[in-house]
Amino acid sequence: MAEGKIPSRSDDYSGWYLRTIQEAKMVDYGPVKGTMVIRPYGYALWENVQQALDTRFKATGHVNAYFPLFIPYSFLQKEAEHVEGFSPELALVTHAGGEELAEPVVVRPTSETIINHYYSQWVQSWRDLPILINQWANVVRWELRTRPFLRTSEFLWQEGHTAHAAFEEAEEETLKMLGVYADFAVNEAAIPVIQGRKSENERFAGADNTYTIEAMMGDGKGLQSGTSHNLGQNFAKAFDIQFLDQDNERKYVWQTSWGLSTRMVGAIIMTHGDDNGLVMPPRLAPHQVVIVPIWRKESEREAVLALTDEVEAKLRDAGIRVTSDRDDSHTAGWKFNEWELKGVPIRIEIGPRDVAKNAVVFARRDRPGREGKEFGIAVDSVAATAQQWLDDIHDSLLARATAFRDENIIDVDDYEQFKAVIANNQWARVWWAGSNAQEQQIKEETSATLRCFPLDQPDERGICFFSGNPNAEIALFGKGY
Amino acid sequence: MAEGKIPSRSDDYSGWYLRTIQEAKMVDYGPVKGTMVIRPYGYALWENVQQALDTRFKATGHVNAYFPLFIPYSFLQKEAEHVEGFSPELALVTHAGGEELAEPVVVRPTSETIINHYYSQWVQSWRDLPILINQWANVVRWELRTRPFLRTSEFLWQEGHTAHAAFEEAEEETLKMLGVYADFAVNEAAIPVIQGRKSENERFAGADNTYTIEAMMGDGKGLQSGTSHNLGQNFAKAFDIQFLDQDNERKYVWQTSWGLSTRMVGAIIMTHGDDNGLVMPPRLAPHQVVIVPIWRKESEREAVLALTDEVEAKLRDAGIRVTSDRDDSHTAGWKFNEWELKGVPIRIEIGPRDVAKNAVVFARRDRPGREGKEFGIAVDSVAATAQQWLDDIHDSLLARATAFRDENIIDVDDYEQFKAVIANNQWARVWWAGSNAQEQQIKEETSATLRCFPLDQPDERGICFFSGNPNAEIALFGKGY
Repeated sequence: MAEGKIPSRSDDYSGWYLRTIQEAKMVDYGPVKGTMVIRPYGYALWENVQQALDTRFKATGHVNAYFPLFIPYSFLQKEAEHVEGFSPELALVTHAGGEELAEPVVVRPTSETIINHYYSQWVQSWRDLPILINQWANVVRWELRTRPFLRTSEFLWQEGHTAHAAFEEAEEETLKMLGVYADFAVNEAAIPVIQGRKSENERFAGADNTYTIEAMMGDGKGLQSGTSHNLGQNFAKAFDIQFLDQDNERKYVWQTSWGLSTRMVGAIIMTHGDDNGLVMPPRLAPHQVVIVPIWRKESEREAVLALTDEVEAKLRDAGIRVTSDRDDSHTAGWKFNEWELKGVPIRIEIGPRDVAKNAVVFARRDRPGREGKEFGIAVDSVAATAQQWLDDIHDSLLARATAFRDENIIDVDDYEQFKAVIANNQWARVWWAGSNAQEQQIKEETSATLRCFPLDQPDERGICFFSGNPNAEIALFGKGY
Repeated sequence: MAEGKIPSRSDDYSGWYLRTIQEAKMVDYGPVKGTMVIRPYGYALWENVQQALDTRFKATGHVNAYFPLFIPYSFLQKEAEHVEGFSPELALVTHAGGEELAEPVVVRPTSETIINHYYSQWVQSWRDLPILINQWANVVRWELRTRPFLRTSEFLWQEGHTAHAAFEEAEEETLKMLGVYADFAVNEAAIPVIQGRKSENERFAGADNTYTIEAMMGDGKGLQSGTSHNLGQNFAKAFDIQFLDQDNERKYVWQTSWGLSTRMVGAIIMTHGDDNGLVMPPRLAPHQVVIVPIWRKESEREAVLALTDEVEAKLRDAGIRVTSDRDDSHTAGWKFNEWELKGVPIRIEIGPRDVAKNAVVFARRDRPGREGKEFGIAVDSVAATAQQWLDDIHDSLLARATAFRDENIIDVDDYEQFKAVIANNQWARVWWAGSNAQEQQIKEETSATLRCFPLDQPDERGICFFSGNPNAEIALFGKGY
């Protein structure tokens, strides 16, 4: 990486993001409007996200399946709010196999309609419930303003779709999967998300309730990073999904859906990145450790590479994702910059003096310069030390992001202060019991949206800071992506 | 499963296939022509296929990435043979976001064009080579005649796309990945595929050479189960992918692509299935073992389920994929039929008498009735026995399929005999040096296609059985899916 290519975050946050992801070879722009190419380094991060989530889904009793990309347009029309919400963003296939189709088909923007078409056939009795299915898939939403990972015309995601015999079970599932997302975000991605409920204005089209994990990015903007919807019986009625219950009565099922997408890759980048580039959270990092062997004289080369082999093998055997950069066309300094740009949590340097001491140098990405370096790590202890450092870096990243978030959530009780906080790219924490129209008014006047009502609420209710209405809940407002 | 629902393979092979996959809940028909829903039991098999392949791809130095679903039509036109081959099958998006698009976009039928558009930007120097990228994705080909898994308008697959500095490297990669497919087929799916080269007529549109793994299904038809293409410099020239070589000259890269799809699920079903339903190859089976606890009196229930728990835990701890069927609404006999239909390799029966002896009963799916049953397996040895049985069942399935294949490949040296062999749903093994037109003539007259020229050839050449031309190679002809 050439010096100075990437703007600093304080000068130009958006420019920093866009240049960083391109220079680090995470992504490229697609040829069709708003699409993206996820390059191997970006995709490796997504694969680790997938694996961490998929393991959690299976541990909570879910199975994967795959439903078609193409949905008849008529399916979307069956649920009124759903079609209204998604119509403006649909991509339509009108011609196929050299002919015009009798009915255009929709490229799925989400799969509630096609999946529930099948659930209506698969569900007969209470014995068929619950259905706990997840799908890993690509979806298409034709967006006006796009940005790689954060909002793209095509993105990758998982979408869970469940059906239950009782309301309580569906609500429990909705919150359970929100908890799975939060656990993943905190313990894998080191992102201190806030679990909350969306307002009516911000709900998924067709849901009774939408829950969210909200994260604060490095510029203070909010990012909805995963959502879990209680769909009530809206789709059950639209698609006639009924079952014969144990009391011998026919009833509609209760449903949920929940999704998390490649947007999470953007969340990771914008939560942890710094002016030197990416900072990968250790548990999801494509490479957790990079070894940079250093030699000047050809006579040193062999011994340095032999020790590199040994250290690499020890780390790999311990289950640590390690790579080594043996390219002889670049200087060590160039390589340090490059791997910092790529955000690898730990760099190990091995030179002739290290060989002599049978020890190596560790440097951590999250603490630049001397402060983050430790010399003389014995070769025998490299794996244990690396594992300990990875845990420690995870904790440090999470603590740093949590502190940043908490410093930038400001308790507010009047609209003037609210505007100042939002103008300062912070979040306002308020008592809220305003109308949907008032929420919309605030959005138009300040660009702030109601990020969520945090699940963690005080015992008492308050007075709405805006409307003066009683019985208000705590809500977080901020600008969002 | 109700008795007699599924036709026998000898009466109606096609009916057997279609009913079996539906009754076993592998698949459902999609609402849009030729699409399919891969249900959890079918998808679990595909996930195991994916994992076995992905591990092999990464072990051979490949990385995953993701390229957009939507390809500008103009990209396809850049390679003349390619667009000619795929045009009749394309699905086109003409409207999106509420507007007509200026240029229609193609839903990818395969990704050579869009990937090579990027390779032309990513490749500058010999240091950027080789590029070894794989993609897991859905693709769309509008087919006239479809059948779940075997040929569908949308299917899931992986497609590898590589770029190399030299022809020899590309040819080596093409054959290496063919070998990876064959190793997977034989050692995971227990399918004795034949590695071979396709004829010019059967080549991928845009390739210099297409290699294939060919499998013989239970009805004697051939199934092309994975292909590996040497693309030469065709796409390199169409997309201008050049690099500065070590000798300081600009050169076009040499390329390969290779793909294996959900068709493999169909291959597994049709290779091993019998008149009782599916027979899952043990290493890919979603459930390797099913435990059926059996009790009559309520007083027996607790002890039987306690032993079921114990055995299930022992198997799970040994890394064996195990499930247990504790549903009390069905008889043991019903369950035996159901799990046979689903093809689970090993059934373990646990009843009160087993509890008394602290032992269980094993039954293997591939040998029906008493012959495949073993009584009195000590509880302490269930894991070791199950692992040994799984290996043994794998070997038996592979041996049975190999014997079936070899019995049905007939050496032929005149066209009358050829026609009789093909009419008998067998394959003809012949010396072949005919023209493309003669190959086409045979196809029209007999429905047989040239499955492949096996890589494993005799040392000498022969005389073509059809044209009488000298210098012929051994070729396999048969009807195909």
